[in-house]
Amino acid sequence: MKRTLSALCRNEPGVLAMMARECGKYDANILSLAAGETENPQVSRIILCMDGDDEAVDRIGRYLESLDAVIQLDDLSRKDFVDRELVMIKVAMDPAQTSQLMQVFEVFRANVVGMGRETVTVELSGDQERVDGLIKMLVPYGIKSMCRSGMIALKRGDE
Amino acid sequence: MKRTLSALCRNEPGVLAMMARECGKYDANILSLAAGETENPQVSRIILCMDGDDEAVDRIGRYLESLDAVIQLDDLSRKDFVDRELVMIKVAMDPAQTSQLMQVFEVFRANVVGMGRETVTVELSGDQERVDGLIKMLVPYGIKSMCRSGMIALKRGDE
Repeated sequence: MKRTLSALCRNEPGVLAMMARECGKYDANILSLAAGETENPQVSRIILCMDGDDEAVDRIGRYLESLDAVIQLDDLSRKDFVDRELVMIKVAMDPAQTSQLMQVFEVFRANVVGMGRETVTVELSGDQERVDGLIKMLVPYGIKSMCRSGMIALKRGDE
Repeated sequence: MKRTLSALCRNEPGVLAMMARECGKYDANILSLAAGETENPQVSRIILCMDGDDEAVDRIGRYLESLDAVIQLDDLSRKDFVDRELVMIKVAMDPAQTSQLMQVFEVFRANVVGMGRETVTVELSGDQERVDGLIKMLVPYGIKSMCRSGMIALKRGDE
């Protein structure tokens, strides 16, 4: 099952290594991980998407909560949250198909961020469904390289 | 010095843990890490931004390259690349300042993705300078929570 944990952590060396090691121990596959700064430079937020059975993910959650460096842990699978992901895709551009390709970008509101002689690079931010949708549409054109940020998320509402 | 490495890795358990551990060993601080799927479900791309001296980061790079799971390693600090980052920010919304706040969102082309009674949540994708610029503008209003994806990047041009 797909589960998402959000951990607010003090920027201490080794926190990421401990997290990643713990996931390996319980045989939960990390689908994506996004670690970035917050409004406080001493604190990072790490969003961890895993595929593993509930018991394994619960254990990982309890372990993370027990770490001194972890200030707060939220199980986003059980709460209402807004999630977004960023993707950059470099796709082959055949002159005969350029206008079709541009239409796909328009439908998904993907922004062109770079262009070569034979490729075009676009970015899109959206929920995972939208990102997956764009990727599916671009596969037939030939995806040359791709980079996904992994999911980031915040709780809905004022909390 | 700020350095960015991009690693194309086979999805094997333990790769992330090894990477994170290695950074800790050489005293290079991980500023952000974004690990996500690529067009090939067996392969992930990990973008690692570090703050450390050049020798330490070079060692980490050589170590990563030596791992069986690492297919390709690029030092993005030394190549021309397009970088983007995604941020979600929940900011306090005082009725007297709503129109000012909306103007800030418009200038940065930040999208409102959620609203509570006392807060509004926006997303922005852009290079780090733009993301930092928005954060700086929103601090005086009161940032309630924030999540950054960490940098993602692809090489410029067709390569």
